[in-house]
Amino acid sequence: MRDQKTMSRNEIEEGPVLAPKFDEKGLIPAVAQHAETGEVLMLAYMNAEALEKTLETGQAHYWSRSRQSLWLKGETSGQIQEVADLLIDCDQDTVVLKVLPQGDGGCCHVGYRSCFFRSVKDSTLTKVQDRL
Amino acid sequence: MRDQKTMSRNEIEEGPVLAPKFDEKGLIPAVAQHAETGEVLMLAYMNAEALEKTLETGQAHYWSRSRQSLWLKGETSGQIQEVADLLIDCDQDTVVLKVLPQGDGGCCHVGYRSCFFRSVKDSTLTKVQDRL
Repeated sequence: MRDQKTMSRNEIEEGPVLAPKFDEKGLIPAVAQHAETGEVLMLAYMNAEALEKTLETGQAHYWSRSRQSLWLKGETSGQIQEVADLLIDCDQDTVVLKVLPQGDGGCCHVGYRSCFFRSVKDSTLTKVQDRL
Repeated sequence: MRDQKTMSRNEIEEGPVLAPKFDEKGLIPAVAQHAETGEVLMLAYMNAEALEKTLETGQAHYWSRSRQSLWLKGETSGQIQEVADLLIDCDQDTVVLKVLPQGDGGCCHVGYRSCFFRSVKDSTLTKVQDRL
């Protein structure tokens, strides 16, 4: 991984070199999307180590902001996310993981397939998924 | 919109009341996903006003961190995002917008359909989309 400060805007935006822009806390948002259905499952954060481990092992690792520690998703729940593809955006400050969720196929601690199980209309939330 | 501080964890996670948890900068990440193809197009940020305007008008509004101002996506590029659905996650700190991009159908200032036009393998990025 290279430091964006040593690169031109064009290198960052269109080049072949991985140079993630971590925020002031050293984190980058990661969107997990189901590799087969396309459903957006969750958004979590990665530090450099989590991103490296994810690329190295093919299993999604995040940084737990509540526990302040590296987090292998599914380590306790069984909801391991096998990474089929990892995409990065133009300014290299967000990644998308295309994943195959293991275990019960879910990802949400509340018990749903996706964390995005409620739709917003005006100021009212309606559940659009059943519990697993 | 309600303040999470006045609510139980269960109300936040499973209830019908919109109570977004903005970060210390007053922002919440918003994932824009194509309503028809499911492709993840971009990640941007909303403040309370941007979220309200989006719900009110049905067109995606964000907070531009670089310009520090409210941003109607597509106002200059024509890449207006008509919002077909807006989802919020369990802890109400991220939203997903299912959008229909107008204009040339793109969203990325570099000229691609999605900002996530590069796939990461080891530390090398490969383009997986053609320019619009």
